[in-house]
Amino acid sequence: MQSGSCEPRGPAHPGIFPTGEAGKSDHQPADHSMDFPVSVVLPAGGTGERTGLQTPKQFCSFLGRPLISYTIQAFERVSWIQSIMVVVAKESMDLMTDIIQRFQHRKVRVVPGGSTRHRSICNGVLALGEGDEERPKVVIIHDAVRPFVEEDFLYKITMAAKEQGAAGAIRPLVSTVIATTSEGYLDHSLERAKYRASEMPQGFTYDVIYQAYQRCSESDFEFGTECLHLALQYCGTNAKLIQGPPTLWKVTYKRDLAAAESIIKESLSQSACVITGGSAQAVTLAEALQKAAGALDMELDVIPDLMGENVRYLLKEWNFIQVSVNPSSLSEVEAILTDLEAANRALLHPLVVIWVHLSISDELSVSGRAVEQAAIMDLASKAAKLHNILLYGIQLHQSKDSECWERSVLRVAEITSALIRDRSPALVGQLLQA
Amino acid sequence: MQSGSCEPRGPAHPGIFPTGEAGKSDHQPADHSMDFPVSVVLPAGGTGERTGLQTPKQFCSFLGRPLISYTIQAFERVSWIQSIMVVVAKESMDLMTDIIQRFQHRKVRVVPGGSTRHRSICNGVLALGEGDEERPKVVIIHDAVRPFVEEDFLYKITMAAKEQGAAGAIRPLVSTVIATTSEGYLDHSLERAKYRASEMPQGFTYDVIYQAYQRCSESDFEFGTECLHLALQYCGTNAKLIQGPPTLWKVTYKRDLAAAESIIKESLSQSACVITGGSAQAVTLAEALQKAAGALDMELDVIPDLMGENVRYLLKEWNFIQVSVNPSSLSEVEAILTDLEAANRALLHPLVVIWVHLSISDELSVSGRAVEQAAIMDLASKAAKLHNILLYGIQLHQSKDSECWERSVLRVAEITSALIRDRSPALVGQLLQA
Repeated sequence: MQSGSCEPRGPAHPGIFPTGEAGKSDHQPADHSMDFPVSVVLPAGGTGERTGLQTPKQFCSFLGRPLISYTIQAFERVSWIQSIMVVVAKESMDLMTDIIQRFQHRKVRVVPGGSTRHRSICNGVLALGEGDEERPKVVIIHDAVRPFVEEDFLYKITMAAKEQGAAGAIRPLVSTVIATTSEGYLDHSLERAKYRASEMPQGFTYDVIYQAYQRCSESDFEFGTECLHLALQYCGTNAKLIQGPPTLWKVTYKRDLAAAESIIKESLSQSACVITGGSAQAVTLAEALQKAAGALDMELDVIPDLMGENVRYLLKEWNFIQVSVNPSSLSEVEAILTDLEAANRALLHPLVVIWVHLSISDELSVSGRAVEQAAIMDLASKAAKLHNILLYGIQLHQSKDSECWERSVLRVAEITSALIRDRSPALVGQLLQA
Repeated sequence: MQSGSCEPRGPAHPGIFPTGEAGKSDHQPADHSMDFPVSVVLPAGGTGERTGLQTPKQFCSFLGRPLISYTIQAFERVSWIQSIMVVVAKESMDLMTDIIQRFQHRKVRVVPGGSTRHRSICNGVLALGEGDEERPKVVIIHDAVRPFVEEDFLYKITMAAKEQGAAGAIRPLVSTVIATTSEGYLDHSLERAKYRASEMPQGFTYDVIYQAYQRCSESDFEFGTECLHLALQYCGTNAKLIQGPPTLWKVTYKRDLAAAESIIKESLSQSACVITGGSAQAVTLAEALQKAAGALDMELDVIPDLMGENVRYLLKEWNFIQVSVNPSSLSEVEAILTDLEAANRALLHPLVVIWVHLSISDELSVSGRAVEQAAIMDLASKAAKLHNILLYGIQLHQSKDSECWERSVLRVAEITSALIRDRSPALVGQLLQA
């Protein structure tokens, strides 16, 4: 199967983690191909008791979208993955079906889980062998609550699984592991260098994982959790272990929800496109903003409009800043909203549009400002409710004093950056002053 | 030593984590006493390479304050802890001294670290035996990058250490631990139930930890990391293991910085006090806000002013909302800023003050609004720069239409909650519309 596709392939967020833990990626999509079928089993039956929340964490929402949808999307965007079998508790089947429809996931089937993790995964593996599509050569098993898995790493796991029968992600241990006595005292500590934490994803040839589940005991089904262990014990397959990136971590505690949200927000806040309408003053402001935004670690592209080649901005993960000079109406912003709606751009997460009104007349019209405030609040309420678009406004006055002007530009950049990063629904429709 | 003290004992944030991972604490300070001296060694020499950042993570700033200052404060507020020995790399001695002065830490001494973790901790232990103060009976060893340790748990560790010679925090393993072959294949997996992750804090009698370091080998100093292991091997002391809360986790990766920031922000956003000046309209608005804030999971107290008994609000972790009716100036807000400055309330973190202007005349004065906007922007710039106070404004119009009024009140509550939670410096001085 070739990975080239007719679909636009933007930066791969959301659903992946584009910056690594330590710096920016280069936004280049991976370009792998695979000459055998690969499918995914995604157990999602956990109850999330360790977060202390009512909602199981795979169904917790981030920017209006459940965590599991991010994980599904991380697989769905990999061209060589043919299908994703999501295994959920019976009582979550309807919820899961809703999520798939609402976020238009295409490669997914849902099967009911069993009473334990191994029973659930086994259900998923069996279902993969029963459908109309070709039985997969390699099955990737992952967790619904590890949303930031990237194509490159999936490729490594898949190739290793095909060659060795089984492969799994590992990470260095963060803490020393100790054995305890039955009375709660230290028995001994393990030498940290010899051990690793076993993480997800893991990959297996269909034959290995199928046989492992055919041969394993009731006790394994009841108390076991580690698929690599079954492959070793029942198929004699020593899994190849591959160190994964720290982003593979499992969302487990309440603090992990905050970390995941921060990663998702960061991935959506990397770039914005400034639309000038072509006016000289707007272009000057846009270019000054571009400079200031560099210092704020955000990429800004300046374009006159969203016509012709620039429609590509509608198809990628951009935020939008419309600069208007002495406007009589919000028509330019309304046009962007219409374009974004037509491109279905806010399906997966709320989109930020910021209207920057540059006033070049010497007198600020105060009554004009009140009218503008009312108009943008009205438009923003509709955009948020109907289209999942967060619209904010910023006003600034063109000053002849260069120091004053630079301060205003810097403030626009700072406010813009904060609005895009925070994505606060409470502040939509506000007309801020720079 | 009695734990009672003349200082006001507010809710214990910041520097602790008041909500647990799963729900709100009851804001009751612990009330333990200890009849023997207890001191702390806080190794802080790490380079933070796993976050991928230039700055070692203990020196990364959260709301303008380095992580290590939060950790120090978590110990400093425990009345029965007599001193904290911070061990830092030689090149960080000046930085650490600056932090101690700037945030007015009182119980801290700084000693230079060694080339490894054990050498650094050993330096700290030796320094504890050398000062003017009484040699501690129990030494608590902690990590600078675990800022959310609470008094109750420190008490448990200390008492167990005194009785058993050594005690340490443990957590269940999140991932299965596996042993690898030298070629990178799975050798075997450990039965998760028999093992635990060894965390911090740990406690030792001075004699045990001192002797352990006297007797251990150069190889232990060079390659070891686990103090409990030294106590077992060189003093025959099997440490008592106590399960700690999930908040003891170690800030290790970049995502952990986001999680820590979120926890700190949450701990600072639990409560606000609404100051009405006593006017009937302001009180009505304040009480409506109180209702709406309940739904937003924030505690609001309504008071007429900060006089008399109400000065106690200045001494605790409150945010402030000043409601002004048809004001001619910002004098009420200026008075609050003066009070907060006098109480030195913004020393440890930025404080949020929100000015809510309730306009009760039928006509909104647009020119008045422009003047107000300029005035609050000016005041907010000064408050942020000079006093670490984040000042925002909200305007609303008293409507006779009850539906319209309820919508406005709800919006004030939502905006207030978002401003307090996000603490965005980019938005100070904005006059928002409700």
